[in-house]
Amino acid sequence: MQQPYKNRSAEELAKALTQAKEQYEVKKALGLKLNMSRGVPERRQLDISMGLFTCLSGPEDYMENGLETRNYGVLDGLPAAKALFAELLEVPPDQIIVGGNSSLKLMYDTVQRGMQFGFGGCLPWNKQSRVVFLCPVPGYDRHFTICERLGIEMRPIPMTPTGPDMDEVRRQVKDPAVKGIWCVPKYSNPDGVVYSDETVRAFATLQPAAADFRIFWDNAYCVHSLYEEDDVLLNLQAEAEKAGNPNLAFTFASTSKITFPGSGVACMAGGKEDIAYIVSLMQAQTIGPDKVNQLRHVRFFKNADAIRDHMKKHADIIRPKFEAVLERLESELAGLEIASWTKPKGGYFISLDVMPGTAKRVVALAAEAGVIMTPAGSTWPYKKDPNDSNIRIAPTFPTQEEIEKAADTLCACVKLAALEKLTSEK
Amino acid sequence: MQQPYKNRSAEELAKALTQAKEQYEVKKALGLKLNMSRGVPERRQLDISMGLFTCLSGPEDYMENGLETRNYGVLDGLPAAKALFAELLEVPPDQIIVGGNSSLKLMYDTVQRGMQFGFGGCLPWNKQSRVVFLCPVPGYDRHFTICERLGIEMRPIPMTPTGPDMDEVRRQVKDPAVKGIWCVPKYSNPDGVVYSDETVRAFATLQPAAADFRIFWDNAYCVHSLYEEDDVLLNLQAEAEKAGNPNLAFTFASTSKITFPGSGVACMAGGKEDIAYIVSLMQAQTIGPDKVNQLRHVRFFKNADAIRDHMKKHADIIRPKFEAVLERLESELAGLEIASWTKPKGGYFISLDVMPGTAKRVVALAAEAGVIMTPAGSTWPYKKDPNDSNIRIAPTFPTQEEIEKAADTLCACVKLAALEKLTSEK
Repeated sequence: MQQPYKNRSAEELAKALTQAKEQYEVKKALGLKLNMSRGVPERRQLDISMGLFTCLSGPEDYMENGLETRNYGVLDGLPAAKALFAELLEVPPDQIIVGGNSSLKLMYDTVQRGMQFGFGGCLPWNKQSRVVFLCPVPGYDRHFTICERLGIEMRPIPMTPTGPDMDEVRRQVKDPAVKGIWCVPKYSNPDGVVYSDETVRAFATLQPAAADFRIFWDNAYCVHSLYEEDDVLLNLQAEAEKAGNPNLAFTFASTSKITFPGSGVACMAGGKEDIAYIVSLMQAQTIGPDKVNQLRHVRFFKNADAIRDHMKKHADIIRPKFEAVLERLESELAGLEIASWTKPKGGYFISLDVMPGTAKRVVALAAEAGVIMTPAGSTWPYKKDPNDSNIRIAPTFPTQEEIEKAADTLCACVKLAALEKLTSEK
Repeated sequence: MQQPYKNRSAEELAKALTQAKEQYEVKKALGLKLNMSRGVPERRQLDISMGLFTCLSGPEDYMENGLETRNYGVLDGLPAAKALFAELLEVPPDQIIVGGNSSLKLMYDTVQRGMQFGFGGCLPWNKQSRVVFLCPVPGYDRHFTICERLGIEMRPIPMTPTGPDMDEVRRQVKDPAVKGIWCVPKYSNPDGVVYSDETVRAFATLQPAAADFRIFWDNAYCVHSLYEEDDVLLNLQAEAEKAGNPNLAFTFASTSKITFPGSGVACMAGGKEDIAYIVSLMQAQTIGPDKVNQLRHVRFFKNADAIRDHMKKHADIIRPKFEAVLERLESELAGLEIASWTKPKGGYFISLDVMPGTAKRVVALAAEAGVIMTPAGSTWPYKKDPNDSNIRIAPTFPTQEEIEKAADTLCACVKLAALEKLTSEK
């Protein structure tokens, strides 16, 4: 175990800085060109779903229970696709909308509907004086971008190892301006946290002051375990209904990281009234989703268990990459007391907290050495991490060999940035 | 040629009514169950595009010019898809966004962007006191539904055989509350009118009072001729640019009635600034469109000429249906002076004007006899046809044999409703 930097003398630190600079220059000389910025599957992960594109052939294959999927019709999703997602999300099919290829689009459209039309019979958010969303941090930048674009004020909520700080959430929702909260409840982005049963129940029994408050439950990684044993997330929709809050939450999911990013199928669930209301609004918005692509998913998978089996193939490809990054973080940084990181059991990210005030520098150093990270600050609303310490690592896209080099480089940058700061301060 | 009803005596009308009732009862006894309500392709039309689903096979086929279409990336459309639509719509590729499966969704989202964010640097429409769209009538009900849903006031504009009454349009756009106009410029829905060059130039040179006025040019039937010789529509985007109004219009199109309704590809075009602005807004809205489906269209068609050739197969299937309806309208109704109808050279509809005050009755009679028509009034804003006379006929979905029976039934209903009205009035 290495000595913590804080226990070292000025002389020792100066020496460590020289070494760190040398180590960084060695990494830089590798001339890497790698991207760890986004949660993107690698090519082998795409190849395991190719059967999706060949599971339908003759015209008769495109009939589903008497319905011609190639033609017009069906606004809220093919019934068979609803049934599949109902099984996966454990929500009744009539509380599900199966949409196009992007759950982000479903989320954006849902928030936009809140702005334009309102929820729960309340005034549209556009006509209310203040609209606030709670944002557990670190969180998913695209959630925050939706709020920023629509002029929704964001308030950070601290994350804990069991989910958002629910005392703080309960305090905040007493403010009637608070209309929503963004959650990635399983293998959270970027922390990899699985919300505990207690956290989910605390959400289900929330008593928000605003009748149009909604939980935006982005269950993006619902079946995305890295290991044999899957984590179990309590069913928020069911718990909320039990607690007498049937329209408290919207759940979102997609097959973007199950089959194909961009050519998957996205879905949303919600309370019966909310879903009926949204379907009524959708009638003005679209002729309906791509039912053929929904049918492909239905025929390729058949049931939720097959999806879970399929996910093991993904896990086998990406788990070694997570482990390679974690090994290097451990061997290079453990004991220095300049960084901490999550050890996720699923999802697409490792969350790395570097010495406060150095995250931007680390990302800049990495970029200079050819390793692109998510911009520092991205995991916070308005891209402003008050501590300048959180960095999201997305290990899936590079090859195994590349990810090992990238992680080595990143560790070198973390050390160098810390030592630069420590030596300039002393 | 039959005698006009208006020239007949009360006795003759009474006799005609008795005959019409008998004729109607005969049709009713057929026990039909047919749908002429929406512009829906029939099954044979779906079968001609099956090659779309088989034109990609191995993983390498999904690479397009170095881009992995199965993965994330590309917000505004696959470059090759942009190029294909650019050729079809004669608009530069950088002024095109290729989206998902529904041009209606592109239209709705565009109007919603006007409401939430505004165009041309003006205040969002949500923050302006009045927002008005001009609606050439008869028109497409789904356009009107978008306005109704978003609280946009609609003003009808009379259609002429060369397009909307442009004197009236010019008068109306002097009102700064007028922000848009809905147009189906080629084989208009439901009239089948092709806007003349003069009309298109009048649009291109409009001087609206509002800087955020936009023409919503729904070119849904751009290649949907029923006959060998295609009609030529002047290019509005090019004419508007020539006239110094580069951001005056948005054009929309899709392959819904070229390949598969629901599994086609939709696109929009506009001025360079407007398109760049919309792409910037889209960054918060979606991860991007289904690029694989775009690639299928690119590989299946290769170029715009192939699309035009492909459309001849559609025309061969549906042209006889249009002709069957027109023959029956001619043989059953000509000379009676109770109805007039369009003889479209393309598109999906025949527009039938029955005796004022009888359209609702005709549609109800037809429904009773098992023939579902688009609800009377649908072709007008707020579903209110002031004359209660316009009926939209969609002849494509039923089989040839069915369409002949459906047209016979419809004619019987038109006569019966007219005679009911004439005899009750005398």
